[in-house]
Amino acid sequence: MKLILNDCLSFADKLEFENVLKKAEQSNLLLKSKTGAGSDYLGWLELPLKISAEEIKYIKKIAKQIQNQSDVLVVIGIGGSYLGARAAIEALTDNINKKGTEIIYVGNNISGRYVESILEYLKNKNYSLNVISKSGTTTEPAIAFRIFKEALFKKYKQEAKERIYITTDKEKGSLRAIARKEGYTSFEIPSDVGGRYSVLTACGLLPIAVAGIDIDQMLEGAKYAYANSEEIAIQYAAARNLMYNKNKTIEIMVNYDPSLHFFTEWWKQLYGESEGKDNKGIFPAGVDNTTDLHSMGQYIQEGIRNIFETVIYIKNDMSTICIPDTKDDSDGLDYIKNKSLKYVNEMAMQGTKLAHVKGNVPVISIEIDKMDAFNYGQLVYFFEKACGISGYVLGVNPFNQPGVEAYKKSMFRLLGKPGY
Amino acid sequence: MKLILNDCLSFADKLEFENVLKKAEQSNLLLKSKTGAGSDYLGWLELPLKISAEEIKYIKKIAKQIQNQSDVLVVIGIGGSYLGARAAIEALTDNINKKGTEIIYVGNNISGRYVESILEYLKNKNYSLNVISKSGTTTEPAIAFRIFKEALFKKYKQEAKERIYITTDKEKGSLRAIARKEGYTSFEIPSDVGGRYSVLTACGLLPIAVAGIDIDQMLEGAKYAYANSEEIAIQYAAARNLMYNKNKTIEIMVNYDPSLHFFTEWWKQLYGESEGKDNKGIFPAGVDNTTDLHSMGQYIQEGIRNIFETVIYIKNDMSTICIPDTKDDSDGLDYIKNKSLKYVNEMAMQGTKLAHVKGNVPVISIEIDKMDAFNYGQLVYFFEKACGISGYVLGVNPFNQPGVEAYKKSMFRLLGKPGY
Repeated sequence: MKLILNDCLSFADKLEFENVLKKAEQSNLLLKSKTGAGSDYLGWLELPLKISAEEIKYIKKIAKQIQNQSDVLVVIGIGGSYLGARAAIEALTDNINKKGTEIIYVGNNISGRYVESILEYLKNKNYSLNVISKSGTTTEPAIAFRIFKEALFKKYKQEAKERIYITTDKEKGSLRAIARKEGYTSFEIPSDVGGRYSVLTACGLLPIAVAGIDIDQMLEGAKYAYANSEEIAIQYAAARNLMYNKNKTIEIMVNYDPSLHFFTEWWKQLYGESEGKDNKGIFPAGVDNTTDLHSMGQYIQEGIRNIFETVIYIKNDMSTICIPDTKDDSDGLDYIKNKSLKYVNEMAMQGTKLAHVKGNVPVISIEIDKMDAFNYGQLVYFFEKACGISGYVLGVNPFNQPGVEAYKKSMFRLLGKPGY
Repeated sequence: MKLILNDCLSFADKLEFENVLKKAEQSNLLLKSKTGAGSDYLGWLELPLKISAEEIKYIKKIAKQIQNQSDVLVVIGIGGSYLGARAAIEALTDNINKKGTEIIYVGNNISGRYVESILEYLKNKNYSLNVISKSGTTTEPAIAFRIFKEALFKKYKQEAKERIYITTDKEKGSLRAIARKEGYTSFEIPSDVGGRYSVLTACGLLPIAVAGIDIDQMLEGAKYAYANSEEIAIQYAAARNLMYNKNKTIEIMVNYDPSLHFFTEWWKQLYGESEGKDNKGIFPAGVDNTTDLHSMGQYIQEGIRNIFETVIYIKNDMSTICIPDTKDDSDGLDYIKNKSLKYVNEMAMQGTKLAHVKGNVPVISIEIDKMDAFNYGQLVYFFEKACGISGYVLGVNPFNQPGVEAYKKSMFRLLGKPGY
């Protein structure tokens, strides 16, 4: 994993960067000493080292059980109890040709139309439920659990109990109480790990393992990043705060492979929820290229100059397909005949970076060799670490989310929930 | 269709709005008189009236032929030759339980991994190709056409010719020449309709018809909007420029149903590409709620106050599912037992609007009765019209996209394309 800053730092004086870098280094110490704001929620910091061999073994055992039991695992969760798993699964499996146990996601919206479609889809499938909610009381997954539990019991009668898997806080919340009472198989989310930092707990790891991904390798990657990516995490945090200080208040996460779309969604939650408070913070946005070069591309090239980009590029996407030699150049493509798509895509990425820098869009680049569980684990830990540091540089508590309560309170009042 | 502005106008003086409104009215006259910037590209303005009965009949005839011929229609296109069709198909069909001919999309990226997955997916399917490119020379679809044509001929030998459908300019470009030479069935994109305004031409209408959607009704809806939504188009254009003048430079398009995700992508292209130039323009972003209330929600509630929202709400999503009465309130949901998801979702929408307005996020609301082809056609024409007006209020040419060329030139140079 490589962080390349020159196309970003060229937009600032050396001294400016050095000053923010100093602040980022101090912020890293604050994070590691667990003395900063929100330090009750730093369980993710040493998570890759601390997760026990027993827990990993148990997750893998249950994952195998679910694979044998079901064609589909229905993951019920929202926010951090949804995006972490989905981002990893989309990045690391072939989501078009679904092999093995398919993972589908509900409880992340309240659309009746969506729920009815999924219920119909499940009619002729064998399925299990994994209900994920740290608090155990979030409305969207609770509604979905009522509905899908009813369908499950209708289909499997008493056997349904063996198809329900709960992931929630060790002690707190109604979901833990329900799991105990009904004797459902369950997993624990450490109380000091917030939702958006939970992908390397059972929250993310169970569905990821069911999807056939090597979670040992993913944790190895995170462990590797723990040991080796501190410096680049500090640099990324510093660079983006440098941009913010220069009124570049929108950061666009850019990928060149559609399988990374949900990685960007995971990143948007991580950074938006950690930093968007106290009337400040970088606005996180995303584009999937080259698709969006024909959509958001115009704005990025020539709109308001308050944008910078972070490009994630997979050096080798493991594809081998080339542009056929058709012995007929009527489409004018012969100048790239026999070239691999991998190569053409990389040139599109390089060309776009050049064009954007010329258009006054600073570019931060992150290169990874290939997309596998190990590298994915690295990326996850790197972005988590950099996010904590970055929030402290900005001067906010990166580990709370007071604003998320506002819509809930307002909705509960309209729904007549007792106490609101 | 209803436009509700009070939660937006409450953030400004009456006089301020009246001034922008005047400008929007003048911009509308400029648009209709076809005397403003980019007036060579106003073919979309009277398109719903002008499209001939014959052309519609032909599109429907060929759509039926494709349905009979194939399980899958592979749509090859990018930007406006991709998003218009996809947005409509996702909004108006059940994309989870694919019935009838499935539509899949290629040529909108250069990922080798993606292309290889699709080729594998097609191995055991009967399929046809619809190649859509106005210029006929765009790199991404041209590459995909080479690859998928080769696979098609390998599978169907000479019969493959009957499975290729071309949508391109009447005269210009290599794709028209290829269609003529090979005798492929083809459709014309009017030369005065730009890509992002092309959904109601054969560009969008052929795949939409193949997906089983009533294109007559969609065009009726557009015609209805042509006759009836001029005033609200002017008001929406005025309101968003009012917000822009008050430094609300990010507009977030909000939906409460995941089937509208690609409608937002279509809208982002339409507005971003029309307005993001000359170092100005509103930055278009999107959220799918309630999903993203647990992601971008924190930022929207409490981040930098340079955001306003436009919420599209479907009053009746045609679902009937309710929250089951489980005779057990251990999940604490009994206060909404027997309530429909439709109702709960609407309360989430209302509650969120209240919370955001309180958090200093102005909210524009658009309500439609239900999501059907007629209403979709209305929405499309309304947003197209408002976009043209809005661009003129902003003082840009809303019908060009000079910035899109920048990355292409830069990429062609790296790829060694002759002439670059």
